[in-house]
Amino acid sequence: MAKQTATNITWHAGTVSRGEREKMLGQRGAVVWLTGLSGSGKSTVAVAAERALVDRGHAAYVLDGDNIRHGLNKNLGFSPEDRTENIRRIGEVAKLMSDAGLIVFTSFISPYRSDRDAVRALLKEGEFIEVYVSASLDTCEGRDVKGLYKKARAGQIPEFTGISAPYEAPERPELVVHTDRQTVEESVAQVVGYLEAKGYLSPASGA
Amino acid sequence: MAKQTATNITWHAGTVSRGEREKMLGQRGAVVWLTGLSGSGKSTVAVAAERALVDRGHAAYVLDGDNIRHGLNKNLGFSPEDRTENIRRIGEVAKLMSDAGLIVFTSFISPYRSDRDAVRALLKEGEFIEVYVSASLDTCEGRDVKGLYKKARAGQIPEFTGISAPYEAPERPELVVHTDRQTVEESVAQVVGYLEAKGYLSPASGA
Repeated sequence: MAKQTATNITWHAGTVSRGEREKMLGQRGAVVWLTGLSGSGKSTVAVAAERALVDRGHAAYVLDGDNIRHGLNKNLGFSPEDRTENIRRIGEVAKLMSDAGLIVFTSFISPYRSDRDAVRALLKEGEFIEVYVSASLDTCEGRDVKGLYKKARAGQIPEFTGISAPYEAPERPELVVHTDRQTVEESVAQVVGYLEAKGYLSPASGA
Repeated sequence: MAKQTATNITWHAGTVSRGEREKMLGQRGAVVWLTGLSGSGKSTVAVAAERALVDRGHAAYVLDGDNIRHGLNKNLGFSPEDRTENIRRIGEVAKLMSDAGLIVFTSFISPYRSDRDAVRALLKEGEFIEVYVSASLDTCEGRDVKGLYKKARAGQIPEFTGISAPYEAPERPELVVHTDRQTVEESVAQVVGYLEAKGYLSPASGA
């Protein structure tokens, strides 16, 4: 990678590589992209998986509406263009954090396949782990923890995913967790088991 | 922090705190914001400081033009509004990485005091460490590693900081490194020494 050099080119031989960061952290940086309807359980699974990883000594982080929509993306609305830009920026931030060696969980409805595929394309092979958090619309609407479905049905929220805007389920996600027929613990075990089995929880060989 | 909950509220008691992440990493998340003229040595100092920290087992990361301008901020130009938005986004990303427990070095000219102060305001007390990478315009122009000053003098780069656009030096930076009269090693020792002395290289007590 070409660096903005200044006084002393020899320092650049000393640039820390991704592999070194991963070795130091004892893991491989990755983006675990949770997608699903509002109320499907994305944040619950993300937060619980982060907890499980940190308890095992891994460096993980959750990007969600709370820390993104009020910060980096607070100047974006909900137009189609802004939704796409929202997901693009989240993808770029997740890429930087993954490059820093972190295991990043992203918890966003991200209803459009093209937006998710664009994030996948940003990352290197195996760095993007798409997790479809699957629960039927009936189940999600039945939970309605934040009362959003009720508002959407009343026409108070335009273009609400699943009600008045489409949700495009992943066609070939790395993982599907069925939150309507398994416990949070089971979903987390599935995610962490995948990370373990695929070698994300130890540094890449040769790093 | 209010979380987007779904199925199981009890999991939220398990949300990983910043303090826990910092304890696990053995450090305090922080943003070391390097500001200075083109050619002042910001990236050289950032990359060498990252190296020094990683060699000591710390998790650090450099945000610079290479990983930001071609990624997150590739849809921004160089108008005053876009420059401000550029720095704002970098500040928000640095904030997320710092919240994840990393020590983040940012290497951008960031010529405007108001833009830097806006980033400081995003962060909590002590989380923003402004480092003025100081070298005279003559020195920077004399180095001109990338030939940018020559182009700017020839009128080929409009609004080039120091030539045709202002640079507002920090008034009360946490640190000043004088790259025109000390070696890279000395500058790095100064930065790392500051982090050490202020306790950033061990987790906050009570975390």
